[in-house]
Amino acid sequence: MASIKPSVPKGTRDFSPAEMAKRNFIFDTIKSVFRKYGYQQIETPSMENLSTLTGKYGDEGDKLIFKILNSGDFWAEAESRKQKEESFSFDSKSLTPVISEKALRYDLTVPFARYVVMHQNEITFPFKRFQVQPVWRADRPQKGRYREFFQCDADVVGSDSLLNEAEFVLIYDEALGKLGLKDFTIKINNRKILSGIAEIIDKADNIIDLTVAIDKLDKIGLDGVINELLERGFTQSDIEKIKPVILLKGTNTQKIASLRSALSTSTTGLQGCEEIETVLNYLNISKPQTAIVELDITLARGLNYYTGAIFEVKTNEVAMGSIGGGGRYDDLTSMFGLKGLTGVGISFGADRIYDVMEELNLFPTATDISTQVLICCFDKEGEIYAFPLIQQLRAKNINAELYPAGAKIKKQLDYANNKQIPYTIVIGSDEMQSGQLTFKNMTTGEQQKLTAEQIITQLQ
Amino acid sequence: MASIKPSVPKGTRDFSPAEMAKRNFIFDTIKSVFRKYGYQQIETPSMENLSTLTGKYGDEGDKLIFKILNSGDFWAEAESRKQKEESFSFDSKSLTPVISEKALRYDLTVPFARYVVMHQNEITFPFKRFQVQPVWRADRPQKGRYREFFQCDADVVGSDSLLNEAEFVLIYDEALGKLGLKDFTIKINNRKILSGIAEIIDKADNIIDLTVAIDKLDKIGLDGVINELLERGFTQSDIEKIKPVILLKGTNTQKIASLRSALSTSTTGLQGCEEIETVLNYLNISKPQTAIVELDITLARGLNYYTGAIFEVKTNEVAMGSIGGGGRYDDLTSMFGLKGLTGVGISFGADRIYDVMEELNLFPTATDISTQVLICCFDKEGEIYAFPLIQQLRAKNINAELYPAGAKIKKQLDYANNKQIPYTIVIGSDEMQSGQLTFKNMTTGEQQKLTAEQIITQLQ
Repeated sequence: MASIKPSVPKGTRDFSPAEMAKRNFIFDTIKSVFRKYGYQQIETPSMENLSTLTGKYGDEGDKLIFKILNSGDFWAEAESRKQKEESFSFDSKSLTPVISEKALRYDLTVPFARYVVMHQNEITFPFKRFQVQPVWRADRPQKGRYREFFQCDADVVGSDSLLNEAEFVLIYDEALGKLGLKDFTIKINNRKILSGIAEIIDKADNIIDLTVAIDKLDKIGLDGVINELLERGFTQSDIEKIKPVILLKGTNTQKIASLRSALSTSTTGLQGCEEIETVLNYLNISKPQTAIVELDITLARGLNYYTGAIFEVKTNEVAMGSIGGGGRYDDLTSMFGLKGLTGVGISFGADRIYDVMEELNLFPTATDISTQVLICCFDKEGEIYAFPLIQQLRAKNINAELYPAGAKIKKQLDYANNKQIPYTIVIGSDEMQSGQLTFKNMTTGEQQKLTAEQIITQLQ
Repeated sequence: MASIKPSVPKGTRDFSPAEMAKRNFIFDTIKSVFRKYGYQQIETPSMENLSTLTGKYGDEGDKLIFKILNSGDFWAEAESRKQKEESFSFDSKSLTPVISEKALRYDLTVPFARYVVMHQNEITFPFKRFQVQPVWRADRPQKGRYREFFQCDADVVGSDSLLNEAEFVLIYDEALGKLGLKDFTIKINNRKILSGIAEIIDKADNIIDLTVAIDKLDKIGLDGVINELLERGFTQSDIEKIKPVILLKGTNTQKIASLRSALSTSTTGLQGCEEIETVLNYLNISKPQTAIVELDITLARGLNYYTGAIFEVKTNEVAMGSIGGGGRYDDLTSMFGLKGLTGVGISFGADRIYDVMEELNLFPTATDISTQVLICCFDKEGEIYAFPLIQQLRAKNINAELYPAGAKIKKQLDYANNKQIPYTIVIGSDEMQSGQLTFKNMTTGEQQKLTAEQIITQLQ
């Protein structure tokens, strides 16, 4: 067989032991917080029926779904279709559903909705689930954007209590705090407030145009937003009405008061204020430890989707897009025929969190260390002497390795250094005779002569 | 959008919280043992270039690889190919490489070989890696055979020491023992012994026929094997020579002695005996706790692949195929152009281990329990009272949930029972007034009035 220069598909990655240790640190931390709040893990298959996925992410999204070629003689199917239906044309769009019936999941939300509907009779509602699995998107790869990446989601369905929203803020706070982030903001908004703003100017149908413009306040300032609104067909009188909303200032409490007054004619808008206030009240009872919680009415992510709360998390320590987001959706499962099941969920952007932690040097040094001690010996005799010792160490739950006999001692110590193994035991003929083994701290270089028992005690 | 009756692709599975808890128990146990022996985790992408995978698993294997349809206008590529090359025919075989350049990994071994070659300059050899990831095969699904399933592999490359083989036996022993298996056999063999058997009858080229026949000894007995050998073109004189090998009896030591004598004219065969003996000698120094280690010369799994040791693990408690296997391969990475790198590895059959554990009822009862305590309250006031309490519990690392106000208490207790939450705290007006909360053990039904602090102490 000709040898192939090996590579991975563009937009995909290998993870080395050092990277895996760091990734596991992030995932394990987040999972432990999810569990602490009563969320339970599920997993769904990597492949879904193509019909489960298509039509859920818009036309642009559909194009980014990775389709799996039917196994067996897929082309026979295409030809038989052509025979039955003369007008059937051989082009990518028409052929796709004929030669592909499965696809890789694009996110965790649609598979979760499918899961809830399929298993509704076994599930105890409110159903609090988390899911940490890869998703695939045929996006153009670029820095920080991959074709295979992990999502890390928690959602509760079947409870309309705003306690859930408050707890998600606390989950973000605790998980990111545990990861070592010291300054981050959890922005919250509510779709009903955005609807209210559109309502008070009688432009409920233009809510997307409105939010797209307001969303740019940070970047283009008030004048810019006003120009954009005018361009998008809003009138000067509209702008006068919503100006107080755009210019919202002060504490969260002050902002809610201003909103209440500006949105006084919109029932929906007022309900949004009420909901935000309820969430903030919960968070006054049990305060986040680290996070700044900020009402931000420019926040509109996933607008087509969310019906209540909207969340977004940003670190203030590093320039980086959002490291988390989520919101409430009143009708997630209706796409699969189960109506009226409200849900709210959040997601952690694990890849970005990884980058932030690298930049801030937040990974504990010990994360990489998997083997605690390496036993080095000079010859077969040393190896035979060492083998029961290493099993003794392992029996005490000490991760340990015995370098197979035959290699130069320098090579063995290099191995320990490269693998960041903090301690070595060197066994030569003196050591075997006296039972006093050379125990070396690889960080300080300090060496001691100790018995096996003393070494075990030190390592524990 | 029309609602779709949801389903998953055949051969794939959802994993519920209860199943995930059990699967995590298995994976976490195995991973912890891998780590204890110095193995480090890597992950590779789900997709590999089609060229990385094809030609590695034989023609039958190639057919079972799930191919991914190129994104974008894949058909344009097919038509352009046809224009350039008139003889190009539109059929599945010719079209596949044109419309698909990526595929889902079929196992973890080939991606690992690709990883080692790609990253050879960063890797410290001997490289001890483990990998726990799903693989995909377009097999016909049946009981116990899935199209998406997890493999759980550990391999070391760059060390020819037989200490590695011995340690793998100890890894199987420790991991399966920790999972609760009480009676299992680790069968070992060596490809060189099989080669030796073929050599002593001058039929090195017929080794496959030979091993296929010998492999059936258990099922069809000696006469059956002899008939099969005759059918496959072996002579009566061949059979006389290899009969002592087929009829190998006694302890491992006795078997090796018999083999040494039967294979005395084959250098390769004798080397196989030597290697097996060395491994068994290691295992006499550090004995497995639970496993029976048995030399079984009928064992030939992955013959085309392995060059030294061959392993297979079987439980003796339940009728089930092998729950693990592996071996040594001298030239794993040569398919990607890196020659002479010897490796040895093992795999755990997680799905079968799961089934065995279910049948033997080996999962600890506590595996499923994720939330330790549920706080139930009657109204909004109770919820407000409970919210700081639940954060106090969580601050002590107690997994806790607060049922949102508004539901009947029966529903809340049902929730606790369905989710196997072992304790509840009920907060009514009496409790709020006195600070003596109703703490209920959901298993025994026992109730106590306790302060928050007392409850925390009990739960810790």
